[in-house]
Amino acid sequence: MSATIEIREGYVPQSPATLAAYLSGIPAVRSRLGGTESQWSIAEVGDGNLNLVFIVKGPKGGVAVKQALPYVRLVGEAWPLPLSRAHYEHMALSEQARLTGRLVPAIHHYDEKLALIVMELLEPHIIMRRGMITATLYPKFAEDISTFMARTLYFTSDLALTADRKKAMIAAFAGNTALCKITEDLIFTDPYRIAELNRWTSPQLDSYAARWREDGALKVAVSRLKLKFLSSAEAMLHGDLHTGSVMLTPEDTRIIDPEFAFMGPMGFDVGAVIANFLINYFSHDGHEDVPGERDAYRETVLTMMQQIWILFREKFLDLWRGNPAGDAYPISLFQGEDGAATLEAERQAYMDRLWDDTVGFAAAKMIRRVLGLAHNIDLEWIKDADRRAACEARVLTLARDMMVNTTDYPSITAVADAARRVRAEVKSY
Amino acid sequence: MSATIEIREGYVPQSPATLAAYLSGIPAVRSRLGGTESQWSIAEVGDGNLNLVFIVKGPKGGVAVKQALPYVRLVGEAWPLPLSRAHYEHMALSEQARLTGRLVPAIHHYDEKLALIVMELLEPHIIMRRGMITATLYPKFAEDISTFMARTLYFTSDLALTADRKKAMIAAFAGNTALCKITEDLIFTDPYRIAELNRWTSPQLDSYAARWREDGALKVAVSRLKLKFLSSAEAMLHGDLHTGSVMLTPEDTRIIDPEFAFMGPMGFDVGAVIANFLINYFSHDGHEDVPGERDAYRETVLTMMQQIWILFREKFLDLWRGNPAGDAYPISLFQGEDGAATLEAERQAYMDRLWDDTVGFAAAKMIRRVLGLAHNIDLEWIKDADRRAACEARVLTLARDMMVNTTDYPSITAVADAARRVRAEVKSY
Repeated sequence: MSATIEIREGYVPQSPATLAAYLSGIPAVRSRLGGTESQWSIAEVGDGNLNLVFIVKGPKGGVAVKQALPYVRLVGEAWPLPLSRAHYEHMALSEQARLTGRLVPAIHHYDEKLALIVMELLEPHIIMRRGMITATLYPKFAEDISTFMARTLYFTSDLALTADRKKAMIAAFAGNTALCKITEDLIFTDPYRIAELNRWTSPQLDSYAARWREDGALKVAVSRLKLKFLSSAEAMLHGDLHTGSVMLTPEDTRIIDPEFAFMGPMGFDVGAVIANFLINYFSHDGHEDVPGERDAYRETVLTMMQQIWILFREKFLDLWRGNPAGDAYPISLFQGEDGAATLEAERQAYMDRLWDDTVGFAAAKMIRRVLGLAHNIDLEWIKDADRRAACEARVLTLARDMMVNTTDYPSITAVADAARRVRAEVKSY
Repeated sequence: MSATIEIREGYVPQSPATLAAYLSGIPAVRSRLGGTESQWSIAEVGDGNLNLVFIVKGPKGGVAVKQALPYVRLVGEAWPLPLSRAHYEHMALSEQARLTGRLVPAIHHYDEKLALIVMELLEPHIIMRRGMITATLYPKFAEDISTFMARTLYFTSDLALTADRKKAMIAAFAGNTALCKITEDLIFTDPYRIAELNRWTSPQLDSYAARWREDGALKVAVSRLKLKFLSSAEAMLHGDLHTGSVMLTPEDTRIIDPEFAFMGPMGFDVGAVIANFLINYFSHDGHEDVPGERDAYRETVLTMMQQIWILFREKFLDLWRGNPAGDAYPISLFQGEDGAATLEAERQAYMDRLWDDTVGFAAAKMIRRVLGLAHNIDLEWIKDADRRAACEARVLTLARDMMVNTTDYPSITAVADAARRVRAEVKSY
């Protein structure tokens, strides 16, 4: 946390009243909304942790407006956070739009001074996490998220970019340190030590929290992941790719909120998705009214999770085969039939290494959602603390093993099998 | 290579005449030289590949002046190279001076527009490579270079820096792409493919060059190293740390020419030193008048090489133990006796991983000096092509095995033993 609240000349946090006047001065937005200022409805709806979010509707259409505050919304002025995160979000969103088109909301307007983005209003989309808690099916999601990850990660990596363009991206995102620090602290550090911000289902999980803080192998493993997060600039990450950063309908998927974007290890993004599916998988025992009621959905969650990795891997490989324009693995070294076979074997080995990273980062993301500051509503919405703790104990048990014994998880199928096994074996917290 | 020669307003390549007038306008330099302009002797002495170097002497003292040219000096205007390399050299030199004090030349003056650095004249220092070719002993070198590497690498890594300061350094060096590209092309790519700039002792090594270009395992291994060079921003590297970047006497060591500096994988710097010792070790068979004449020096070279790694490892570990101020491996996770033991074991494991990188990067540096554009005088000065080729064949044989079978080299002793074995077994090219 930085010490003081940022003061930026010209920056004013918006209210519905000021925002109407502001938006009416932007022709593109005015014509999208239709009518005049007085006909617009504006509601502040931000339910995230950091920012203001407004939904604006006019006679003709609507827009969403996201504005950064100079502090963490959830905590208030006691936790300052720089306005520059809107700059990085806008930059990442623009790059993601270029690479994936309709998988992110369209940007209608960006105001650097106000740290404010006017974007497409996504209707009737809901936050994916909410849909998954009520066992909603999203038949297109595996296809869409695997495309999003494959394209954003591949095309910003050394496999697709020349070194100078890659280094320019690294420099462009290097200033997003405050947001990266949130990840570094809350995911890779605090859950493994006594920290004021930690919280967990207590007293049920007290002994888990205590054991996690004393677990040398686990702390070494998470520290290696943190080091990779700090020093491996593999590709442009979304940086916060959980199911709360997805708005969707069964037909349409959009990835939102890339303010944590920076150039980091690919497995962090892929692992975030896998982790959220595993958390959701374990959460249904706390939501079903009759045991077994959600058996089918549970299996669907695991099936989707497996599809996501399998599709991601295949799409990433296809992009690599078709667009080997980067400075890494220059095609000139792998000519002829033998060369092609050698390179293809190395591509597979590359994906195996990325898989190992994915398993480790997924585990880190799971643990932080149970022992750290920010929890998932998948688990938080289980009212009965004992039932919740039982689900959370399964999350912790699987995650610890994935992080410490990563090589025991050579495939996504192995992860799915282990999830089923842990659910069967861990009866309570 | 960029397409055109850079034009910078105010930039003029210096000649002895213009330089005298320029230096007389800098009080600190004028007083260091003593007397007046007319009493100064100025000689252009650059024997490197890239820049102008002047030695300036006055009645009282001397200075060295290094100026970047907008092209590669060795090649001429056909190979443009940006003047900004002087900016990166100055930045790295300043940082190295802060961290190692007397192990780099003092900077007297820096002119960004002229891409010119006025620095301490090192007398009677010579380029280390020249000394080693004539079997000169440097009893302080292992101590000094291990200190230089341990301090510059440790204190610019995530082990010593907070993430925001580390990322600021990454951004500061991200623009040095043209110099990085030289490394990427000439070290990690060209020696393994048909490339106009390659050269080797021909026809003696023609079959080696051909085999190297067809060697799938080797090309995969070097491509993995290249990927690490492109994406692992572990610490500020010198970037060109061979024995030609060292000026010394038996009593005093200075590391010069950090214009290739950037934030990269530590093993690249350490490997460069190891590689140059191995090349020198193999070269003496081409220099001795009577076989066996240099047996003692040869062993001294291997002993020094072993000391360098052993001292580096111990110093790096000591710095880590004493200054754990970085965001990686936060000390708060490793409290108490158990925590301390766990962290110490992980420190050792970290050094083992760095050692693996070192072996691979050393091998890449060895191969490029035999099959690529830039050769070492250790080998080039062997006039008899057959004798030279025999030495070079040993360099290639050891390097290939180090790169492909890195785990067969668990220690620096294993490398030294293998060098002796290859020298005994590989009788000719």
